[in-house]
Amino acid sequence: MHITSLGGGHGLYQTLVAARLSAPDSITAVVTVADDGGSSGRLRREMDIIPPGDLRMALAALAGDDDEGRFWARTLQHRFGGSGALAGHAVGNLLIAAFKEVLGDEQSALDKIAELTRSHGRVVPMCNQPLEIEAEVAGLDDDPRLIRPVRGQVAVATTPGTVRRVKLIPDRPEACGLAVAAIRDADLVTLGPGSWFSSVIPHLLIPGIVEALNSTEALKVVVLNLSAELGETQGFSSERHIHMLSQHAPSLRVDHILVDSHTIPTSAERSYLQRAAGGLGADVVFEDLRRQDSDGRSLNKHDPSKLSAALMSLHRSAREGKASD
Amino acid sequence: MHITSLGGGHGLYQTLVAARLSAPDSITAVVTVADDGGSSGRLRREMDIIPPGDLRMALAALAGDDDEGRFWARTLQHRFGGSGALAGHAVGNLLIAAFKEVLGDEQSALDKIAELTRSHGRVVPMCNQPLEIEAEVAGLDDDPRLIRPVRGQVAVATTPGTVRRVKLIPDRPEACGLAVAAIRDADLVTLGPGSWFSSVIPHLLIPGIVEALNSTEALKVVVLNLSAELGETQGFSSERHIHMLSQHAPSLRVDHILVDSHTIPTSAERSYLQRAAGGLGADVVFEDLRRQDSDGRSLNKHDPSKLSAALMSLHRSAREGKASD
Repeated sequence: MHITSLGGGHGLYQTLVAARLSAPDSITAVVTVADDGGSSGRLRREMDIIPPGDLRMALAALAGDDDEGRFWARTLQHRFGGSGALAGHAVGNLLIAAFKEVLGDEQSALDKIAELTRSHGRVVPMCNQPLEIEAEVAGLDDDPRLIRPVRGQVAVATTPGTVRRVKLIPDRPEACGLAVAAIRDADLVTLGPGSWFSSVIPHLLIPGIVEALNSTEALKVVVLNLSAELGETQGFSSERHIHMLSQHAPSLRVDHILVDSHTIPTSAERSYLQRAAGGLGADVVFEDLRRQDSDGRSLNKHDPSKLSAALMSLHRSAREGKASD
Repeated sequence: MHITSLGGGHGLYQTLVAARLSAPDSITAVVTVADDGGSSGRLRREMDIIPPGDLRMALAALAGDDDEGRFWARTLQHRFGGSGALAGHAVGNLLIAAFKEVLGDEQSALDKIAELTRSHGRVVPMCNQPLEIEAEVAGLDDDPRLIRPVRGQVAVATTPGTVRRVKLIPDRPEACGLAVAAIRDADLVTLGPGSWFSSVIPHLLIPGIVEALNSTEALKVVVLNLSAELGETQGFSSERHIHMLSQHAPSLRVDHILVDSHTIPTSAERSYLQRAAGGLGADVVFEDLRRQDSDGRSLNKHDPSKLSAALMSLHRSAREGKASD
């Protein structure tokens, strides 16, 4: 089985950990490239590279289980101490930048790091050029009807206003060919969870990615966030999260939207979600997906083994459904 | 056979390349840690580390002959482009700093890089703490008798005055235990070539290193520079280079001083050298050591294969001498 996971940041990290638990034949992480904050932001401004932070996290998530893999996972994620120009830079970001200069292109750099880390999969950017996010944001002025543009991933993620819509700059960029191929060749494609406007929706603003999603034979599953993030989607309902997907990519069709059953407990809420999912041609699947602490309390985090089991179960049902057609 | 080479910078690099050509059982590079310039200088000021530049060059010199080794040699030596905070940093320096933070100490970082690079040998610092060089320099004022202190490796290496003597700060530091062991356990120890005051003499200002040199059973060979460097030893004769060694380490005893035969062509000059070498208990050996260009012209660089052959010949004679004792 081949799994391709689209996303960015911590959400993609968790999905990749879940994907590993399913022991597939291959995993491909397709990663957003619009980050402009912190170490990534400094590097994209200083050097001619796509922001490496989300790529690095995906590589760390996929690093091997042996000593060497663990050493590299730790090292990629390590941030320089000290008080100088390096302080705060993630080592993996510098390594991506260095290998890109030595080997000539980002993909060779990512593949070299995957080799060093005994990676369980391949990491590819959704697009081979650095992108910016610009959002239309309401609620920044006294007049609530006034919409202002807010540019940059960090600015969008932390805006106190309400994001109406996001776009990429440059608009409608070309999809990375390896990302398209990984979606087409997959048996299972996941999108999300993650920061909705900066890690999830950007994938849907690339025409080549949406086309690949609509033409692949893979089972396509959107994994919904457990809770709205502070900042960009504060106060957004789960229903609105789904609406946002069809609003940004009206042609998009997916199979399932996987939702944590604790998050949407009532049947009234569930029916709203089902209705929203209809816009994507999807049905909503409710499963217990939350991690629990040692006292059995549900945490605000996906449990990779529960997520893995839910994804595998959906994939199994789909295969059996096809076989009985 | 075990070879231990003391030095720093480009001189040590060339010696290590020569050592590799002799295909010994092991090579240990014992490296100066007083650099305060460029990438190394920035890192030692920003972070709590010994300056990595000379260590990195030694690692690059020893990297394996296969694709992986060549990739790493290139990557360690690569300097970041761009125009930001990273520009000019050697990738290997950042890697030493990163691995030191992750693994906890410099030697583990150096050994990890040696493992990655399929290294032909081990790289150890001469001392486990960063050091500074301070020189007594004449000729900086109108009064030529006036001696001024000049502090820092870069300042000493580029002084327009005449260096009389150098010292380390802190004075008489503790030798790195691995460096002492590598000298004691060697069959052949080399010192130089290299920047005399910043890469060669610093070794002789560490009491533990001089003691190890005087007590080892290894054959000890000083490799003299082909020409005086601009700056620190400008205008110094080869004889004065040798005098400088005994001046800084009066108790030091070595076996041979290996000198390029083109550099010291006349028998009068050679006899001066022999006399100076007497202060170290050494004899001077003249060999053709220069690299030639494609037209057969001698260049101002050591030829690693000639240097290797000369060192091996001295080692062979010594062993035969011992066998016939």
